[in-house]
This record gives sequence, C-alpha cells and structure tokens, in this order.
Amino acid sequence: MEKHSIYEPFGVDLDLVQGILREPDNHLIRKASSMKGHYADAKALDDLIHQGDPLHYEVFEKEVPQAYGHLMFGISKLQPGTVNGECFMTKGHYHAIPETAEVYLCLCGKGYMLMKTTEGECRAEYMERGRIVYVPPYWAHRSVNVGSEPLTTLFIYPADAGHNYGDIEQEGFPKRIYLRHGKVEIV
Amino acid sequence: MEKHSIYEPFGVDLDLVQGILREPDNHLIRKASSMKGHYADAKALDDLIHQGDPLHYEVFEKEVPQAYGHLMFGISKLQPGTVNGECFMTKGHYHAIPETAEVYLCLCGKGYMLMKTTEGECRAEYMERGRIVYVPPYWAHRSVNVGSEPLTTLFIYPADAGHNYGDIEQEGFPKRIYLRHGKVEIV
Repeated sequence: MEKHSIYEPFGVDLDLVQGILREPDNHLIRKASSMKGHYADAKALDDLIHQGDPLHYEVFEKEVPQAYGHLMFGISKLQPGTVNGECFMTKGHYHAIPETAEVYLCLCGKGYMLMKTTEGECRAEYMERGRIVYVPPYWAHRSVNVGSEPLTTLFIYPADAGHNYGDIEQEGFPKRIYLRHGKVEIV
Repeated sequence: MEKHSIYEPFGVDLDLVQGILREPDNHLIRKASSMKGHYADAKALDDLIHQGDPLHYEVFEKEVPQAYGHLMFGISKLQPGTVNGECFMTKGHYHAIPETAEVYLCLCGKGYMLMKTTEGECRAEYMERGRIVYVPPYWAHRSVNVGSEPLTTLFIYPADAGHNYGDIEQEGFPKRIYLRHGKVEIV
C-alpha cells in the first residue's frame, strides 16, 4: 500500500549562454496583441499590432503537478523594443496563492523586475546576466526589457501558486519604465 | 492596518562561470569528519580525517524566512575526491516536510544527484554544467562528485521544507558511486 503517489525525478538541459531550455513541455507565446491595456500609449500599441503583431514574450516550462510541494520552473524570454518609448514588458501577475514567492535568475539581456504590493509599494530590481531576484510573497511582478537583446530568465515558483493577471489588468503598476535617447527612465 | 508582513524584494549576484554567490548570508562547512558513517570504508574515512580532515562541501545561502510560501536558494559546492574509491558526496536528506520538491541547476563539475524513496526506489541523475535536476516530493537526495573539480549547484526549495538527515544516517542509500581507474561505477 502506497502512502502517496511518487513522482519520478528527471533532468533537463539548459543552455546557460543562450538561455534555452531543451525539450520544454509547455510553450506559451504572447504577441503585442496580448498586451492591450498595459502600455500608457494605447494608440502606439495598436499601430504595432497592425504592423504585424510581433512576438512579445515566450515562456518555456517543464510540466510538473500543480500541487503543493512541487516546484514549477522554466524560461521567460522577453523581446527588446518599446511602445512609444515604454519598454516591452510582461503582463505581470500576483500569484493566485498570494503568499508564494518566486526566484528569477537572469541569463541574458538587461532589464528590471518591477514589483508592487496591493498596498501600493513598488520596487524595480535590476537584472542582467547572473543576477538573482527574489520576489517575496505578496508582490506582483513583471519583467521589463531595457536592453537590445531578449531578456531571458530562469524562474522557479511553487507549482500550486497559480497566476492572478486580472488584478494587474485593473490596477496596473505604479511605475513605468521608458527608454528615451538610450537612457532608462523609471517614472 | 496591515493584513500580513511584507518582505522586501532583493537581488544578489551569482557568478555563472565559477558558481560563486556574492554576499551569502549563511555559510555552512562540512569537513570529512562530518561524514562518519556515510562511506562504505570507515577506516579510509578515518585516515582522511587524520590526514588533516579536508573540506568536504560547503553551502552558501541567502536568508529568507523559513515559512510557507518563501523559497530558499543558494549554492552547494562539493569537493572532488574519493574515500577508497567511493566518490565524495553530501550527507543527503529528506525534507522534514517530505512532500516538498527541490530544483538543482548544475554550474560546474560533474556528478550525480542520487535519490531514494522510503519504499526503496533509487535513481541517479547525471549532472554537469547546464543540467537541471528535479527532485520531486518524497525523494531523499545527495550530490556525488565524480569529476576532478568542485561540483557546484544552485538549489531552490520551499523555505519551510526543513532537513531530515537522521533517516539517511540510519538507512543510507541503496546505491554507492565509485570512481575506479577513471571509470564511474554505480553499484
């Protein structure tokens, strides 16, 4: 009689230079059209969508049970670019179980992890190759690419955490990150 | 009125080539003398201890609350060497909350993650630079260095998981890993 179901260990290769996860189980694609409502200049985003709706970001994950105790991990790859100066970013989310943290290890590119609490606190933590960012429980988080190449990060979070995108769609973040004349502005 | 305590985000630098975590909060050192009872040849280990009790492995961690939802992360650095042919290894442990997983990313060296369940299942997952090993819930795990340089891994696990070393001290692992005439033997 088994007390609990046993999940098999596994290994997977990660190209640490290019940030490529070999043989991901899930591949999520977000184009510019997925980002409506997130940028300050809605018209500029519409123009971008009409000009071919370019790839915005991708998530590559290994599949594990979305259950307490398991850890989800994968690669987030965010393209460089701006929407009328506002740097390309991910939608951002709270965890559905808000008291769960997430660890990010940046492998390529330059950017920020933008974080906020429901109480209105906001932090921007710089990311470049080799930088680990700790997103503690209760902090919504979004990646922002301020560089000229994809911003690629390895993420790990509790597999039962879930994603709450809706609150961010309503609230937005208190700060936006722009690239103007080659200079980063967090405003 | 705050609903819950808010923990501040932070970043930390990891040298991805050498596997060095900058400014760790905790530094655990295990010498050969910490490993009594773990190797097949107790006399050979005693000899090693009397010959200067060399460094066996180190753990460098960032400090986060050991509470549900947080994630502990750090670097494990295991020296190369053998005890009469049996490769240097870590003590190995179950998690005190056994239904918690752990993710390892190998940065340097060559070795195995040796894993076992209380039911007697045993797996050895190869590790080298860029290899991620998923240690699912309920699997005890130990690193084994089969190379000629330190085996260095980044680990991430639920911060409330805790460590249960005692059961491994009693049970050991069903398999041992030897290096004989330059060849790895898992027996």
